[in-house]
Amino acid sequence: MSRWEPNAHERLQQAAMELFQERGYDRTTVEEIAARAGLTERTFFRYFADKREVLFSGSKDLEKLIVDTITGAPQTTAPLDAVATALEATAPMFEERRARSRTRQALIAAHAELRERELIKLSSLASAIAESLRGRGVARPAASLIAETGIAIFKSAFERWLEDPQEHDLSHHVRGALEELRLVTAATGAASSARPQTKATQRSRRSSP
Amino acid sequence: MSRWEPNAHERLQQAAMELFQERGYDRTTVEEIAARAGLTERTFFRYFADKREVLFSGSKDLEKLIVDTITGAPQTTAPLDAVATALEATAPMFEERRARSRTRQALIAAHAELRERELIKLSSLASAIAESLRGRGVARPAASLIAETGIAIFKSAFERWLEDPQEHDLSHHVRGALEELRLVTAATGAASSARPQTKATQRSRRSSP
Repeated sequence: MSRWEPNAHERLQQAAMELFQERGYDRTTVEEIAARAGLTERTFFRYFADKREVLFSGSKDLEKLIVDTITGAPQTTAPLDAVATALEATAPMFEERRARSRTRQALIAAHAELRERELIKLSSLASAIAESLRGRGVARPAASLIAETGIAIFKSAFERWLEDPQEHDLSHHVRGALEELRLVTAATGAASSARPQTKATQRSRRSSP
Repeated sequence: MSRWEPNAHERLQQAAMELFQERGYDRTTVEEIAARAGLTERTFFRYFADKREVLFSGSKDLEKLIVDTITGAPQTTAPLDAVATALEATAPMFEERRARSRTRQALIAAHAELRERELIKLSSLASAIAESLRGRGVARPAASLIAETGIAIFKSAFERWLEDPQEHDLSHHVRGALEELRLVTAATGAASSARPQTKATQRSRRSSP
């Protein structure tokens, strides 16, 4: 077997998904994944750090596309718009893979160690987004808040995309989630935005619960 | 040694924090924590599932307070306001513990396994918040989005609270983060909110970068 197998990465991913569905994630070994792909275990570890990683290998490409899009947005674009546009730009990475994404998400939901890995990836994505916003001159605390809000939008959009019977693309759901967030935040604190908040209203709000 | 030691929970937490600072988190064992507290290892495991958990034992109380506050908010309160009020209500749990919270946060930042545990706790908190919003009649996708947005506000507020040289309380920073989020979302999509979005403007936005 030669050192560099053609399409080894894709073959390993495909084999892993097949085996996870046939036998369950827990009962599938790296050895079996490599064998199904017609490759060695050593080749597996050349591409993936562990069995979990085979489900998350696209995350670096995703992060790069998002960061590059934020960095490349016109300086006049509002920060959250730059983030939303970057999230929309990922739609082609997911299109044609809805069924596979559904299977993958069901696997993640069913295994604590996969949920952990997903949370770590999203946290890393949030840091990268915050970093690129700071590169655009956004102050540090605002950059983190906007980045985390972007992750909230992405999670919501992704869930809606997976479940959408009409099969709109992911960018449609990113816009939908952003629109909903705007309505939700506009609805909040309506009274205090109408007249400036005084110490008295602050106190009464604070003591309310 | 009697089966129920007075203040065992607090003594173990205190001992753990001391040892983590003196020797580092990695080099501290559960046996040493128990010994420092004058208790047995068995007693430790009566209170905490593992060494990590000693840093996260307050998370259930935090979650309960937040969920109860959301559930008890007047039905007329906008969902994100109910969440923000619930986050503000946690301030007394943190006041008088800023120095300790700073030490704890530095430990978490320095250890991948602690960051993982923190992300799991926040994810569980997000699910609990979403669930309590659904109990108030908020639709499922909106409830998840608002809950995740609430987590973004909480993370941001907590970071600002830890770093605040003026030592305002946590509720001050929750209101600040919410206010900033309102400004950020109001700034976004300003053009499209002025006139209804048409298919043409959607296409041009989608194709931009």
